[in-house]
Amino acid sequence: MGKKVVLAYSGGLDTSVAIQWLIDKGYEVVACCLDVGEGKDLQFVQEKALQVGAVESYMIDAKEEYANDYALTALQAHTLYEGKYPLVSALSRPLISKKLVEVAEKEGAVAVAHGCTGKGNDQVRFEVSIKALNPNLEVLAPVRDWKWSREEEIEYAKERGIPVPINLDSPYSIDQNLWGRSNECGILEDPWAAPPEDAYDLTASLEDTPDTPEIIEIGFEKGVPVTLNGKSYTLAELILELNEVAGKHGVGRIDHVENRLVGIKSREVYECPGAMTLITAHKELEDLTLVKELAHFKPIIEKKMTELIYEGLWFSPLKSALQAFLNESQKFVTGTVRVKLFKGHAIVEGRKSDFSLYNEKLATYTKEDEFDHNAAVGFIELWGLPTVVNSMVHQDKEKVQA
Amino acid sequence: MGKKVVLAYSGGLDTSVAIQWLIDKGYEVVACCLDVGEGKDLQFVQEKALQVGAVESYMIDAKEEYANDYALTALQAHTLYEGKYPLVSALSRPLISKKLVEVAEKEGAVAVAHGCTGKGNDQVRFEVSIKALNPNLEVLAPVRDWKWSREEEIEYAKERGIPVPINLDSPYSIDQNLWGRSNECGILEDPWAAPPEDAYDLTASLEDTPDTPEIIEIGFEKGVPVTLNGKSYTLAELILELNEVAGKHGVGRIDHVENRLVGIKSREVYECPGAMTLITAHKELEDLTLVKELAHFKPIIEKKMTELIYEGLWFSPLKSALQAFLNESQKFVTGTVRVKLFKGHAIVEGRKSDFSLYNEKLATYTKEDEFDHNAAVGFIELWGLPTVVNSMVHQDKEKVQA
Amino acid sequence: MGKKVVLAYSGGLDTSVAIQWLIDKGYEVVACCLDVGEGKDLQFVQEKALQVGAVESYMIDAKEEYANDYALTALQAHTLYEGKYPLVSALSRPLISKKLVEVAEKEGAVAVAHGCTGKGNDQVRFEVSIKALNPNLEVLAPVRDWKWSREEEIEYAKERGIPVPINLDSPYSIDQNLWGRSNECGILEDPWAAPPEDAYDLTASLEDTPDTPEIIEIGFEKGVPVTLNGKSYTLAELILELNEVAGKHGVGRIDHVENRLVGIKSREVYECPGAMTLITAHKELEDLTLVKELAHFKPIIEKKMTELIYEGLWFSPLKSALQAFLNESQKFVTGTVRVKLFKGHAIVEGRKSDFSLYNEKLATYTKEDEFDHNAAVGFIELWGLPTVVNSMVHQDKEKVQA
Amino acid sequence: MGKKVVLAYSGGLDTSVAIQWLIDKGYEVVACCLDVGEGKDLQFVQEKALQVGAVESYMIDAKEEYANDYALTALQAHTLYEGKYPLVSALSRPLISKKLVEVAEKEGAVAVAHGCTGKGNDQVRFEVSIKALNPNLEVLAPVRDWKWSREEEIEYAKERGIPVPINLDSPYSIDQNLWGRSNECGILEDPWAAPPEDAYDLTASLEDTPDTPEIIEIGFEKGVPVTLNGKSYTLAELILELNEVAGKHGVGRIDHVENRLVGIKSREVYECPGAMTLITAHKELEDLTLVKELAHFKPIIEKKMTELIYEGLWFSPLKSALQAFLNESQKFVTGTVRVKLFKGHAIVEGRKSDFSLYNEKLATYTKEDEFDHNAAVGFIELWGLPTVVNSMVHQDKEKVQA
Repeated sequence: MGKKVVLAYSGGLDTSVAIQWLIDKGYEVVACCLDVGEGKDLQFVQEKALQVGAVESYMIDAKEEYANDYALTALQAHTLYEGKYPLVSALSRPLISKKLVEVAEKEGAVAVAHGCTGKGNDQVRFEVSIKALNPNLEVLAPVRDWKWSREEEIEYAKERGIPVPINLDSPYSIDQNLWGRSNECGILEDPWAAPPEDAYDLTASLEDTPDTPEIIEIGFEKGVPVTLNGKSYTLAELILELNEVAGKHGVGRIDHVENRLVGIKSREVYECPGAMTLITAHKELEDLTLVKELAHFKPIIEKKMTELIYEGLWFSPLKSALQAFLNESQKFVTGTVRVKLFKGHAIVEGRKSDFSLYNEKLATYTKEDEFDHNAAVGFIELWGLPTVVNSMVHQDKEKVQA
Repeated sequence: MGKKVVLAYSGGLDTSVAIQWLIDKGYEVVACCLDVGEGKDLQFVQEKALQVGAVESYMIDAKEEYANDYALTALQAHTLYEGKYPLVSALSRPLISKKLVEVAEKEGAVAVAHGCTGKGNDQVRFEVSIKALNPNLEVLAPVRDWKWSREEEIEYAKERGIPVPINLDSPYSIDQNLWGRSNECGILEDPWAAPPEDAYDLTASLEDTPDTPEIIEIGFEKGVPVTLNGKSYTLAELILELNEVAGKHGVGRIDHVENRLVGIKSREVYECPGAMTLITAHKELEDLTLVKELAHFKPIIEKKMTELIYEGLWFSPLKSALQAFLNESQKFVTGTVRVKLFKGHAIVEGRKSDFSLYNEKLATYTKEDEFDHNAAVGFIELWGLPTVVNSMVHQDKEKVQA
Repeated sequence: MGKKVVLAYSGGLDTSVAIQWLIDKGYEVVACCLDVGEGKDLQFVQEKALQVGAVESYMIDAKEEYANDYALTALQAHTLYEGKYPLVSALSRPLISKKLVEVAEKEGAVAVAHGCTGKGNDQVRFEVSIKALNPNLEVLAPVRDWKWSREEEIEYAKERGIPVPINLDSPYSIDQNLWGRSNECGILEDPWAAPPEDAYDLTASLEDTPDTPEIIEIGFEKGVPVTLNGKSYTLAELILELNEVAGKHGVGRIDHVENRLVGIKSREVYECPGAMTLITAHKELEDLTLVKELAHFKPIIEKKMTELIYEGLWFSPLKSALQAFLNESQKFVTGTVRVKLFKGHAIVEGRKSDFSLYNEKLATYTKEDEFDHNAAVGFIELWGLPTVVNSMVHQDKEKVQA
Repeated sequence: MGKKVVLAYSGGLDTSVAIQWLIDKGYEVVACCLDVGEGKDLQFVQEKALQVGAVESYMIDAKEEYANDYALTALQAHTLYEGKYPLVSALSRPLISKKLVEVAEKEGAVAVAHGCTGKGNDQVRFEVSIKALNPNLEVLAPVRDWKWSREEEIEYAKERGIPVPINLDSPYSIDQNLWGRSNECGILEDPWAAPPEDAYDLTASLEDTPDTPEIIEIGFEKGVPVTLNGKSYTLAELILELNEVAGKHGVGRIDHVENRLVGIKSREVYECPGAMTLITAHKELEDLTLVKELAHFKPIIEKKMTELIYEGLWFSPLKSALQAFLNESQKFVTGTVRVKLFKGHAIVEGRKSDFSLYNEKLATYTKEDEFDHNAAVGFIELWGLPTVVNSMVHQDKEKVQA
């Protein structure tokens, strides 16, 4: 009996060809397809793997696990890569790796394979994650290894009877999960060109959005969004629902020239209607409930968490330590945020919390004012003292020098 | 002859009353009014000071100095306080302080006075700045010192023949300069309430914005915006022009619950159409022209610059050191950014630069690809090595422990 | 019956006078003296409070609580203020505050009092901590309020029959706990003057240290030092024992010009033989057991933890979040460190751990080498790619410009 | 005529063999040997290259350039890698690369070669630096490429008549320049073993240091050490002199388990008597002359500068930006530091500066005190306000919940 390999299978041409290629190399191929909310027909994908030659084909619904263990971290840590877009592919790769390793261990496989090329970030994320979870598994990258041109690949597919998809001439390379959709290639490779409308799928064009705003209320419990307009949702459902609602209003389109881990700049467009709405709302609730010094330091944690996830180090001990900080910071991020969805905006119009640290009595300029205005005099004196001493010293010295 | 005080004069009730109050204290009052682009009739303000009793009244046009020495730093450092709004009042205070000190030194004044209350940030900024520039000048804060209720202040004004403005019952407290407009008080003190339309002035409501987008091109030279649609502008003119154009499309409204330096949270709304458009465009040009490691570290500088300005430490030596970093980072931020202004958005649709580090030959997935895909194998191996060693060690140990 | 105040009582002149001063103000004074390892006769102090007029006198042995809940954080976070000295007074203040509040709540007191002056850091730490723990308690600062000269204070003491200590003419102002000893004032106020030998107490002068080194082994369990030379200790005992042993070898003298929270620079000398030995050893064990990315980020947490403690914000939610990170980071900091104490040095000569990530097979240059040298080629290519692309672009442009 | 390669030549076995190996590959070899203060007989090295087959042999005295453009950055930025040792090899690699490229351009060479193996950091530093300076030059790494065992290499050397050094059985691998000396391999590969005395060369063993301290005064001008005991030195001379003086007293031995860029931990020992003395003294002068907020932020710059240099990115634009910050920070780091060298310590006993921000009138506890003690009351109130509001809110909520 042959040695087994577990392949991350998407149903597309690359991974279908990879099944045959791996068989050629002497492997028995176990296909594994994960539902992380990309909204594809995964039943079909599961079956296709078997048709193409897999000895076994898994289809795993990991939407809630993805939402709760991965997307939630991205939400609470506001993981906007380079200040621009919430991680999309970077976030699903570690979970997919985890499932591949679980299947490999269950199936007694000796290797795991992914369909990434040699110039993207995802190969790094897969390989580091898989090795971190089980250093004994070999990791194969057929697409990176075979070095075929598109034409050669299609040739090989035809020879071996592998169905070649019809939409193969789509210029784009797309990845999607419930946290968002990324798109690169084609005309997008020209950073001066505006992304054409067909580059987008999850969001309405601004020109096509409704002329009436939609007001929603999101309820958070310890940093977790739990209700939408008063109704409870699981996290995956809530995000998917928001993708619908906010997507309809054109929220969450992002166009970004980014620095990849592998050393190049690339240009991609993203659509993250649910993610951007939630991050915006969550940040506003934190503005209300986090004490100043925590609010001012948390961005440092966020930046590192973002980079670490982007760079494929999800299973590093650093992740656990950052996560511990994050968890602690969310204890009182409980409350309700009112958001107006309109013309591509998720505008927070109101926020309230039982743990609000906004104190109207201290903030008001009315007669209710309880703030001690005299305290400011002493505060300013000591706050400015280093600067003032510095000035005195240098003023004197300059006079001496002049 | 009496001792002189230079008063930052706005023409409003508080500083008009302050003139008389300072005269009562035995001072000769020199009024000083700065044009930093707030769009008021400053001629009128200058004259009013004399009517109310000032012995001298200055009106200084500082718009270009403000744009080039202050707003430009905010632009290049993307100084969004708490990730939300570009500094507005915090940015003008050090320049106003500088001018007050210059006038005080010219006039032989012994003191400088400002009209801030005891609970805002501006008192700190004024006092620390003034002391930093001339530690020998006394700083007076009449409004903080007299401790009158609004009614008592009006009473005093009427007694002394000081004109009481008609719009005195406006619920809002506003500050404006060419970099933006801030507004607090009134209904805004309730963070659950949506800001009413009359809280805004520089920007159109989304509901009222044109249904046709406006495409503009902004030309940058070493980080400085120098052209708009191919036409050259001074920086102040360019910002003011953008306030018009982007404001018409509703760009730049911000609603923020912020942590003040004096220890309280307050809720304010901001309008910064020009500033937000420029920051957005500038960031995109940096995405294209800054090398990865610089792009990833610059946010640390930006965050510190933002906090330092917010906290009134503009004249600290730390400012000079951060500025030196910033200047160096801008050397090649030269190019053109195409921005679509539409429905409250400033969407960058294209960016180009002679110094673009985006290399299509490396980025492309077409046959033009020059990226070395094999390099990734070695890269991943060493990149992931610490994580993998960590896993191997802990896997072994857990087995031992189990 | 009078309202009660709980006074942090040290037995010195200031707090003895404060008892009487508070009685004059109409309070019943409950004295409270904490043993945090300063090595004083606290029995005597407890009794003296009653003699001087306190209605009640507490003496609380908090050494183990101090070691486990406070010093341990300082150890694991390597909290060297300004890179120089482990926090000493800053670390005990929050615990003392906590105990004062507990006593106040038990005794039904309305206020808490401390003996700090108006220019030190400790007043801030006490007042913020006490208010954080119980915002309803008033905080009194008799020494800051009475504004007496030393002579006036002694005069008052003599009048009221308060014993004036004999060593009152010591030029120094000292604070001590098991984590170290601080000393300021007198000749130390001249930063050009070398600290005289009598400024030190816990450590031998280098000139007087033994000519034979002492080798010790410290055993850590999850970041906690638990054994010394194989023998188990409670944490307080272990630190105190190390103060003896390392102090004898002159370890831990520090001379520092520091930036106080209240805006001035001051010069102090510290002695922290146990603390410095432990921090040094702990850092070395981390070097062996922490994965690279965690080791490189932890200093950011350490710096913030240090500043937060120094600045009196121990009871801030930020402390809890930083602590959560810290706890997570210590899970595998288990092992043994061999330290040579000699001539003022605590030299780590060897470190070992079951969780060591140092892999001799990867590190060695012998034939045992298992490191993949070929991987480096690909790694370097991608690692340097941004820099190289940057050079190519700028080289071209410069040629064009030249 | 053959194509030329410029080889970084050290005179040792590896690079001698490399000359022949490169000739075998069809190159004309130009040897290039740099004097960066390693204290070797470079005349001999220069001649040896020719004997072994180089067509040309350069010997370049780069000590002052190295001191002023490289070591000075390390000094002013206190670049202690992982908080432990001042960069040694990392600092010389970019300068050597620069000189190699200059020679290559002058000689019309097509390639540059270095003698590094595949598992160290230096290969990365060389290759990235050379490519950054001239992306058109090929970089060769003979030692990494030939994959010989030590025995095979010696065999080859003997066959080709390349002299095999006598000290070849030294277990150590050493690199040295005026900023310090690094040593790895042999028994040092066991992190539990104490480094034997023969691992050190620049510093006396503590046991052998003089029993009398030596007091020196170092004069700094804008962050640059310019005098020693009142006598002027060039920077290279001053560092070399301090290596002597401080080395005699055993200053600057460091034993470190470090995280390499290539993903492994390694254990090395360093000797940096001059560097550690200067960094210590310089830091103390900064403590006196830098304003608080600058002193507290500079470590962030230092950490990044350290990592960037360690990681081979000296010629990145980020380096220039960090350097600009650094230069600005040094403007007033002028003054004198008195250092006691004794038993392995460089103890700063006194520091003074015309730009000292230490203000004895503010710091003193004598009658001269000019500090405003009342200011503290207001300061504490506002400083602690966020924490207190937080406590009030959570106290209330907990009561409600209980």
